[in-house]
Amino acid sequence: MSQPLKFYFDFLNQSSRALYILLEASKIPFEAIPISMLKGEHLTGEFRDNVNRFRKLPAITDHGYQLSENVAIFRHLAREKLVPEHWYPRRHLGRSRIDEYLAWQQTNMGVATTEYFQQKWLVPYLQKTRPADNAVNLASKQLEHTLNEFEQLFLNSRKFMLGDNISFADLSAICEIDQPKSIGYNTFQNRNKLARWYETVREELGPHYKEVLGEFETKLKGSGSGQQQGVAQAVKQ
Amino acid sequence: MSQPLKFYFDFLNQSSRALYILLEASKIPFEAIPISMLKGEHLTGEFRDNVNRFRKLPAITDHGYQLSENVAIFRHLAREKLVPEHWYPRRHLGRSRIDEYLAWQQTNMGVATTEYFQQKWLVPYLQKTRPADNAVNLASKQLEHTLNEFEQLFLNSRKFMLGDNISFADLSAICEIDQPKSIGYNTFQNRNKLARWYETVREELGPHYKEVLGEFETKLKGSGSGQQQGVAQAVKQ
Repeated sequence: MSQPLKFYFDFLNQSSRALYILLEASKIPFEAIPISMLKGEHLTGEFRDNVNRFRKLPAITDHGYQLSENVAIFRHLAREKLVPEHWYPRRHLGRSRIDEYLAWQQTNMGVATTEYFQQKWLVPYLQKTRPADNAVNLASKQLEHTLNEFEQLFLNSRKFMLGDNISFADLSAICEIDQPKSIGYNTFQNRNKLARWYETVREELGPHYKEVLGEFETKLKGSGSGQQQGVAQAVKQ
Repeated sequence: MSQPLKFYFDFLNQSSRALYILLEASKIPFEAIPISMLKGEHLTGEFRDNVNRFRKLPAITDHGYQLSENVAIFRHLAREKLVPEHWYPRRHLGRSRIDEYLAWQQTNMGVATTEYFQQKWLVPYLQKTRPADNAVNLASKQLEHTLNEFEQLFLNSRKFMLGDNISFADLSAICEIDQPKSIGYNTFQNRNKLARWYETVREELGPHYKEVLGEFETKLKGSGSGQQQGVAQAVKQ
């Protein structure tokens, strides 16, 4: 039977992974519709015309209502579906703290992880060349600064970013951090607090996370050829 | 009597203006604390240590709870204070549509208006030079593209972005657009739909908006000297 909620995603994209895991962990019924960004499927045809006028992933339709932007989709799910409270807790103004992190992520963490991923993996993949050392170095420096700031601003002595329970801030952040980590970036050097937090989140997320991360890493190894226009911009969200 | 809600802002910053207008229009009692970014007041002392570890404006403290990031502050107000429903309407999934716009704004409109403002006004102001033609041209092109996209993706034949009632999406967008407009950018050329929408929003917002815009434009004309380090980055949010 077709589900009212359709989820369009590509596991190469960090926000697609975070929302997929949230949907699975929350046991929200949905129809999973993989869209290949490397083949440009998000730019054309049915997707562009009837799913997402922004031509971006991830995207949903819910009873035909189209929605883009991962943070908007997250809040839509929190309002309209049964998302367990700990992902977006009302207690102690937890929602405001998560909103603050997600906004910071959009202009800081997300920019740095995406740029590194593009320079180190995506551009060389598309152009069939080696990564450009200068561009990778620049992206590394930005990423280093951002990860240090993340550790300093958002991690503390508690288990998770908001305390004893995992929230969407942790899930979102670990998917961001996997973007450079899975292509070899030395994420934890001189970052013990980050390493401890990462391990705790990974364990807590369990099989949903491992499966999705596995599929991402398989894609990195095995990406075939295809229509490649516009991908650099597309993987950006 | 001191208010539980303290609002830290600088009218040179578009998000500060949008939230100030929202607070006033919603009749939420607050203590208004102007912080001069041109003097670097957001980077040092009391503000950095006890108000906002992000060193960014706008910021609030609410019963001592510190919060940064304009979209997070907006949602905090919607949850904790009496913000009239039309600013963030539940009806017809209006909240999801506003969330989608605010996320788009953060990575598109906000980037373009800020870059133009920096190249055309802020950098020349700080360095006491003329604007660099190349940089201004580049920023103009990006802004042109973004305004066209805004018109195409978010405006339609209805009065406001969500229909018959003004929402925080309209308020946020008009404050973004004023950033280049107030320093001479030809905003409405070949953009009739944008011009009509702008006029409607301006009229609807009434005196709250006119007063804040007036103070912004006075600042543009009369900014004095001061400690100027780090301002370029600071005006960015």
